[in-house]
Amino acid sequence: MKHYTSINDIENIQSWIQEAKALKRNPLNYKDLGKNKTLGLLFFNSSLRTRLSTQKAALNLGMDPIVMNVSGDAWGIEFGDGTIMNGNTAEHIKEAAAVVSQYCDIIAVRAFPTLTDKEKDESEHVLKSFVKYASVPIVNMESATGHPLQALTDAITISENAKKERPKVVLSWAPHIKALPHAVANSFVQAMQKMDVDFVVTHPEGYNLNPDIIGNSTVNYNQEEAFKDADFVYVKNWSNYNDYGKVLNTDPNWMITKEKLGNAKFMHCLPVRRNLIVEDAVLDGENSLVIEQANNRTYAAQLVLKKILEDLK
Amino acid sequence: MKHYTSINDIENIQSWIQEAKALKRNPLNYKDLGKNKTLGLLFFNSSLRTRLSTQKAALNLGMDPIVMNVSGDAWGIEFGDGTIMNGNTAEHIKEAAAVVSQYCDIIAVRAFPTLTDKEKDESEHVLKSFVKYASVPIVNMESATGHPLQALTDAITISENAKKERPKVVLSWAPHIKALPHAVANSFVQAMQKMDVDFVVTHPEGYNLNPDIIGNSTVNYNQEEAFKDADFVYVKNWSNYNDYGKVLNTDPNWMITKEKLGNAKFMHCLPVRRNLIVEDAVLDGENSLVIEQANNRTYAAQLVLKKILEDLK
Amino acid sequence: MKHYTSINDIENIQSWIQEAKALKRNPLNYKDLGKNKTLGLLFFNSSLRTRLSTQKAALNLGMDPIVMNVSGDAWGIEFGDGTIMNGNTAEHIKEAAAVVSQYCDIIAVRAFPTLTDKEKDESEHVLKSFVKYASVPIVNMESATGHPLQALTDAITISENAKKERPKVVLSWAPHIKALPHAVANSFVQAMQKMDVDFVVTHPEGYNLNPDIIGNSTVNYNQEEAFKDADFVYVKNWSNYNDYGKVLNTDPNWMITKEKLGNAKFMHCLPVRRNLIVEDAVLDGENSLVIEQANNRTYAAQLVLKKILEDLK
Repeated sequence: MKHYTSINDIENIQSWIQEAKALKRNPLNYKDLGKNKTLGLLFFNSSLRTRLSTQKAALNLGMDPIVMNVSGDAWGIEFGDGTIMNGNTAEHIKEAAAVVSQYCDIIAVRAFPTLTDKEKDESEHVLKSFVKYASVPIVNMESATGHPLQALTDAITISENAKKERPKVVLSWAPHIKALPHAVANSFVQAMQKMDVDFVVTHPEGYNLNPDIIGNSTVNYNQEEAFKDADFVYVKNWSNYNDYGKVLNTDPNWMITKEKLGNAKFMHCLPVRRNLIVEDAVLDGENSLVIEQANNRTYAAQLVLKKILEDLK
Repeated sequence: MKHYTSINDIENIQSWIQEAKALKRNPLNYKDLGKNKTLGLLFFNSSLRTRLSTQKAALNLGMDPIVMNVSGDAWGIEFGDGTIMNGNTAEHIKEAAAVVSQYCDIIAVRAFPTLTDKEKDESEHVLKSFVKYASVPIVNMESATGHPLQALTDAITISENAKKERPKVVLSWAPHIKALPHAVANSFVQAMQKMDVDFVVTHPEGYNLNPDIIGNSTVNYNQEEAFKDADFVYVKNWSNYNDYGKVLNTDPNWMITKEKLGNAKFMHCLPVRRNLIVEDAVLDGENSLVIEQANNRTYAAQLVLKKILEDLK
Repeated sequence: MKHYTSINDIENIQSWIQEAKALKRNPLNYKDLGKNKTLGLLFFNSSLRTRLSTQKAALNLGMDPIVMNVSGDAWGIEFGDGTIMNGNTAEHIKEAAAVVSQYCDIIAVRAFPTLTDKEKDESEHVLKSFVKYASVPIVNMESATGHPLQALTDAITISENAKKERPKVVLSWAPHIKALPHAVANSFVQAMQKMDVDFVVTHPEGYNLNPDIIGNSTVNYNQEEAFKDADFVYVKNWSNYNDYGKVLNTDPNWMITKEKLGNAKFMHCLPVRRNLIVEDAVLDGENSLVIEQANNRTYAAQLVLKKILEDLK
């Protein structure tokens, strides 16, 4: 594999899931594969799970991780073509990406959306600029519109915990006070579309995700109906997509409760705001998979790095 | 050993000191013990010595250290039970600690006190939350009320430099312009109580430490009397304990001078403000042990990590 | 070699260049040399290339790099002698340098000039304080007046790309909106003075560099004349040296264009502001060496670290 920028870079999700499970059983089996190779982790935004799990994944493969918070450790990066750089940005992505490629065998990048400029965000200009100007493989650690390491993690976790061949999986919107990206929801939808699951999305009217991503997936505005007989309830807030980046709904009735959840397993990418997105009883209860999801982030990242390392010349 | 959160986790300080000295002689003797193990260093506050010495200790044991400045690299952590998280904190310690435990074999935490809420500080809610919600061992890199890595260091340093079997050790308060924690002083008191030393604490009236910690240790408000025949003078400022966290005294007469010190060895955990806490002549003189103390931080941390690694299943 | 603080620490630049080229061909040939040795990288200022390339160099030699952003990760450092430290600085360089020396076998430091206090900057008080108070070798990762890792890189790059025995090398000032240091230009001048090249410096009148550094090197205020038959054009902005640290000239006519450059190779230390310092057509054209320069940063740093490691007792 060259880059891992989208869940669509996965050809056969079932075989990836099996490979990830094998890595999880023997995480140090490929300790020599990444020897003398560096992974550059570039953060334009905050990170906890991704920061730690991707480093752990690299270490499991014998790689040397080098972490950099782009704005805190260096300076503003310019992405515009032809810009006269007399403002706040000190280095163009053309140089930055090419230069980091001199020191790192793989570059992993986190760059969140503006949530104010839909066109810019959907163009994935940061991630795509790295792909364009770097000379080494790029891994998406959450971009403007996708979080494919998380979605691979989620697919692994569902596969591990499924009690039936074709489980029912529900993606539910939940309320939040801040404007959050669509990336996790988008990639989760795309992952579920590749899996053999009965998939339903539920959210308030007017809170639809990008129709190009949703495609033929079922949407039900009635959360209670959507949750019926669910095996997995995956919860995530996102800001409005139509009135882009706005918080138009904070209806607490959409919060996930133990009662609503029933016997379904609860999933969330974390961080999660307790008693706003989901009540304590769910997270503290036996049906929560969130910590195991977090654990699986290591093996999703490790699988991606392994596949890239195997194809490095 | 499971956790190292307090100097009271040391059963036999004499045997620990001997073990630390052996490590110092041969710091790479256990290079395989930590192989393929990660140490997560989580900093809620600034750090120089602890940051570097704990990493060095981990490297000496073959571990991979992963450093994270919690607020800068990630986001605010919520510690309250049952909180509706619609404020500034984005992740609950219940998730944060459990998640970091998925990537790190040992978690080391630095979290200073509020110095405004005595009850909260004395509850050690940050450190104890990590112990409660993490599934791996926790090491205290200075908490609200204790700094046991420093105190172990100090015990080692006194043992190395003692010229008689039962040296006289004085802990002296010194003036500072900012409100400082009681953690270093507290743990030092507790360490000295475990050692075979003649121990005296001196500070201005009204500046007593927590009486539960001081216990039967001798307190003398007269610094000159206290220093008489001292072999070691350990200096540290702390803010007022009774009128909690206030700076009620900055009397320069309490500053440590070469004259006051006499032949005693000078100790301080560092950082130290020159000519406020102690005059240049002391730090630049032959009786200062502060750099050797800093050196011993590595072996104190290494001993703690070694003991924890040996007990990891 | 003990320290590497200035380009003058290089005895024979030709032999260094040959050694660096050999390292570039086989960067892992000395992987055991730095085993169980730590390199502390202390940043008082932002960094991208230096941060990553110096870590990469250390890893290539088997060292463990430990990175610290001094102000963000720790606190303000005091450099004044005899200061009563009742202000914003919390630790004196005497302690800081001696303490870091306990954990790191080599310390690399980046500390930019004030650009307001010429005398202080020219005294190199930060770098020299580390040399004075640390007990381990110091590497200059760009100080107030010099950037010798960059200059060594530049010498290697010119040697690699020279088509004739004595190429013509021009150092040209170019406009910038912010006050930039003289360090890169200074060290480049010093490196060229050691090389067998036809060297010319060009800048607007009144924008001379330190005459003590320029020495007998040719200066031509006419950029067009200076560029005639140039093989290498090295571009760098610097703020005014006489009216110290001021930006008195932003004349866009000094910007580097493809037309001006002709067949000469373009060099710049990066980061570079596009269409302010140099037009896109140059950086995107075939004559730009900037990415290869960045690549060579690794081998310059690795050579310096190797020479220091070989002389460590």
